[in-house]
Amino acid sequence: MQDEPEVAVLRYGHRPGRDDRMTTHVGLTARALGADRVIFPDNAGQSRETVEDITDRFGGPFDVELTAELDATIRGWEGSVVHLTMYGERVQDVTGEIRETRRGDGEPILVVVGGEKVPFEVYEAADWNVGVTNQPHSEVAGLAVFLDRLFGGRELEREWEDADRRVLPQARGKRVVDGDGTGD
Amino acid sequence: MQDEPEVAVLRYGHRPGRDDRMTTHVGLTARALGADRVIFPDNAGQSRETVEDITDRFGGPFDVELTAELDATIRGWEGSVVHLTMYGERVQDVTGEIRETRRGDGEPILVVVGGEKVPFEVYEAADWNVGVTNQPHSEVAGLAVFLDRLFGGRELEREWEDADRRVLPQARGKRVVDGDGTGD
Repeated sequence: MQDEPEVAVLRYGHRPGRDDRMTTHVGLTARALGADRVIFPDNAGQSRETVEDITDRFGGPFDVELTAELDATIRGWEGSVVHLTMYGERVQDVTGEIRETRRGDGEPILVVVGGEKVPFEVYEAADWNVGVTNQPHSEVAGLAVFLDRLFGGRELEREWEDADRRVLPQARGKRVVDGDGTGD
Repeated sequence: MQDEPEVAVLRYGHRPGRDDRMTTHVGLTARALGADRVIFPDNAGQSRETVEDITDRFGGPFDVELTAELDATIRGWEGSVVHLTMYGERVQDVTGEIRETRRGDGEPILVVVGGEKVPFEVYEAADWNVGVTNQPHSEVAGLAVFLDRLFGGRELEREWEDADRRVLPQARGKRVVDGDGTGD
């Protein structure tokens, strides 16, 4: 989020076709829940287009990048690397420490979200391997809970810039207005 | 979770093939994050098999059901109905009230997670329409954050019964033991 050390999300691995929807959901979840940027493998151009389109319509700032260098992105990251995995330490035990490193030391965080099989080098390169439960479920769910806990819910209050449209919370039904809040 | 009013998750709509993975992730997320049961549309048999297989291996209790009667399940629910939608009230504003209804009055909760287009009747039938942000992202992410907030993190401490295997949290690498905690 703005005026805070960066949080970027790296989607590790992508199989075009089969993973398009999951990779897109990783990107949209990163955007909606307070990350500044998502980095996809370079074969995930279709997911990039979808996330950029949503950002154009619903606002930002939020960046989407492709890289051919997943491992180098992790190795070269100047800050902390958090790898989300069901084999990792419990999110409720380590998030406080991660949050302190970010806020206290101003360290940017790279959150690595596995797709296809993640090699052992990623576990080694990570400063924290973190499990949102030690149960098999969904990388999208794990990312969502981790970001909500990392930001302590502040991400839900974030303002969006340059939005074409904005959804106004409603007890019943749907209400969408122009980005500047005028008109339905 | 055990000794608490039931929380069930209803996946509203499923397109076989196209939605298999998302529907499976809804089910696995429901299980991992403290729900007691997931109800899928009756054309989602493949997702049911996958979730049941994970429950057999990693433990329960957790039930998976199919229904041809999505609307009747909502209308006939004896308890509160929460519909997760980006058009709804803000999760940070209403979860306290939902939690109180469940814990104070002992009301079971049905959490409705949209798949394909959700008809207006579902918005009408819900006691709460809740947005985990008013941004487009992922029904799996929305479900995860909602459950984590509904249970206030207690779901992360839940014990699993009748598990064949159990993952032990590790700072590096993977450690899986038998369900009773003996052996690697």
